[in-house]
Formats: sequence, C-alpha cells, structure tokens
Amino acid sequence: MERPLDQELDHIRQELLRMAGLVEAMIADAMQSLLQRDQDKTVGVIAADKGIDLLEIEIDEACHAVLVRRQPAAVDLRLLVAVMKINNDLERMGDSAVNIAQAVQVLNLEPPLKPYIDLPRMSGLVEEMVRKSLDAFVRRDSGLALDVCASDDAVDGLYKQLFRELLTYMIEDPKNVSRALHLLLISRNLERIADHATNIAEDVIYYVEGRDIRHSAPQLA
Amino acid sequence: MERPLDQELDHIRQELLRMAGLVEAMIADAMQSLLQRDQDKTVGVIAADKGIDLLEIEIDEACHAVLVRRQPAAVDLRLLVAVMKINNDLERMGDSAVNIAQAVQVLNLEPPLKPYIDLPRMSGLVEEMVRKSLDAFVRRDSGLALDVCASDDAVDGLYKQLFRELLTYMIEDPKNVSRALHLLLISRNLERIADHATNIAEDVIYYVEGRDIRHSAPQLA
Repeated sequence: MERPLDQELDHIRQELLRMAGLVEAMIADAMQSLLQRDQDKTVGVIAADKGIDLLEIEIDEACHAVLVRRQPAAVDLRLLVAVMKINNDLERMGDSAVNIAQAVQVLNLEPPLKPYIDLPRMSGLVEEMVRKSLDAFVRRDSGLALDVCASDDAVDGLYKQLFRELLTYMIEDPKNVSRALHLLLISRNLERIADHATNIAEDVIYYVEGRDIRHSAPQLA
Repeated sequence: MERPLDQELDHIRQELLRMAGLVEAMIADAMQSLLQRDQDKTVGVIAADKGIDLLEIEIDEACHAVLVRRQPAAVDLRLLVAVMKINNDLERMGDSAVNIAQAVQVLNLEPPLKPYIDLPRMSGLVEEMVRKSLDAFVRRDSGLALDVCASDDAVDGLYKQLFRELLTYMIEDPKNVSRALHLLLISRNLERIADHATNIAEDVIYYVEGRDIRHSAPQLA
C-alpha cells in the first residue's frame, strides 16, 4: 500500500516536471525568437516568467509542508532537498531565458551581424544538457547525470570561443558593437543555463546515491 | 538546558558566518585589486574559491545530518532550509568575486579606461547589501532584511547606467572595447552579487517570520 508520503512526493515531483517543461519551452522559444527573428516569441518568454516565479514558491512551500508534517528520512529526505535545489535552478534558468529574450528584442531591430552558426550549436548542446539532467531525475539515472556534468566543459569552450570572436567584431567596426555585445550576453546566459543543468545533475546524483559530487569535476573527466 | 539540536544549529550558524566573512573579503579584495591595480590580490581571490566550495559542501552535509538525526520542526526547520539556501547564495557570490578578479587581471594589463567613479559607488552599495543581509540573519531582523530588498533597484539602476556608458565608450573607439567590456563584466557580477544578497534577505524573512516574500517586490517598494 502506498504511504501518504509517497503521494505527496509524487505530487511535488509532477509539479517540478511541469515547471521544468515550461522552462525548457522558454529557453527554446528565446533562441527561436533570435533565429527566426520573431519578436512575438520574445514577448511570450518574458510573460512566462511570472508563472515560473509562482511555481517556484508553490513547490518550495509544498516541500516545507512535507518536511514539517512527515519528517521524512533517507532517500525521501534527499528527494526533497534535491527538489528544492532543482526548483531554484529551474527558476534561474527561466531568468536567463528572459535575459536572452530581452537581448533578442534589441538584436531584432537591426540586420543580423553575421549568420548565426556557433550560437545555435551552443544552444543545441545546452538544451540537450537541460533535457538529460531532467531525464536523469525522472529515471533516477546517475550515469546520465554524470554525462551532463561532462558536457559542461564543451559549453564553456564554446563560450570562450564566441567571446573572442565577438570581441574581434566589436574592435573591427563600431557599428558592430551593440549587436556583438547583445550576442555575447546571449551566449553568457546559455553558459549559465548549462551551469544550472550541471547543478541539477549533481543534485540527481546526491538524491540517487547519497553522495555529493559538487566541486569535484576533475575526477569526472 | 540547551538541547543537543541547539548546539548543532549554533555550530552550523557559525560555520555559515565564517564562510560569509570569507566571501565578503573576496568581494572587497576583487574590487580593491581593480582600484589599486594590485595583481596579487586577484590571485588571492581566485585561490580562495576552493575553500568556499569545500565549506559549502561541509555546511550542506551538516544540515542534512541534522535533518536526518533530529527531524526538526517549525523555526528550527526554517533555519536549516534558510541556511542551505544562504549557503548556496554565498558560494555563487564567491564565483562572482572570482569572475571580477579574472576581469581585473585583464584590465590591469592596460592603463585605466577612465577614472573609476560609478563602479566603486556600485560596489560600495553592493557590499553594504551583503553586510546588511548577513546582519539581518544574525540578529533575526526582518526589517533590516527588507532594507536590503529595497536597495536592489538602486543597484539595477546603476548597472543600466554603466551599461549605456560603457557601450558608448566601445562605439567611440575600438581601443576602448576590451577594457569597457571587462568593466561591464565586473558591473554585471556586482549586480548578481546584489541579487544574491537580496535572496539572502528574503530567506531571513522566511526564517524569522515564516512567510515567503520572493517575487513580490512591488509590495516592498
């Protein structure tokens, strides 16, 4: 027979996954608004943030209520701690998607600086990390979570490469400065989203295996 | 007579405050390394991050252990939840201090772009927010925590002003681009540190009063 605690944890897990789906859509829409030069999509991303903020509070309160009422132990407690952390990372990912959408709104006022090639590649990689980190949570798959952690270096490398390239554009021609700077902000926010996906993956490992692998990246390589 | 739980919570509180002191020093040193053009200080900031990362894990583990062993309720539980969140915000502040120090290392290779006036003002305000948010935690002073939340708009305003000014510098002369961009990164990281101080203040209010004021900024104004 299922414990009341299990039902409550299931409900929290479902709410978290609903929030994750919304945040994933925000990130995808923010990047598509850049690539398709679609100003409407940016408005949708910015508007969606309010709902994410409310969901974060709702999920946090649900976790606190279960902590108080059920005083869970072992894996149940680790799940709740992980959910509270993942919740926070998802909310910050939503903020990054909003930052991207705001930069896109400026960029869409001018012709593109150059064909976007590295940025879609970077966002493809980042969106995959987000998806995998959440799959790892759903399937309690710490191997998949380790994959996510291992991808973070590739994203950091792409960011550094874009940084150098966009700096060169800015120096070459003052007319490039504003556009290159806003593209740089976008890549910086993608890099941050990858960091949050890595945090989620680390939380999954803590939840599944009961060990903390944060700040031990060298051993993961 | 003091409960064993109280002793454990005291220990955790002290460790958190020790970490907070180290992070405050990192932020101050990172900014002084810019203003005094002191490359040695940047090295110290970057080196300090490792210790912060370890302290974060140690504090988190101590919180989990108390949750499991003592199953605290009410204000004790709220304290633990607040500590876990503040811990995370402090660690991210440390990361921002490292980002600042890395940008300073690039800036110190060239003569200053201009006399630094707005940036020290911004960092003064941000460092005060950090200090107040931690004082509010120590004194369980939700009024002081509300002050911190109210200061965040001023920091955002300074960031936007600096953004516009530095963008103008970049457009005026290609020789300014790299320096203006790195100054922009510094101001962006200061703005993020202010966000984390605001998060800490919100956690203090949750801990002291048991209510969640996140994402309700308009009512605070």
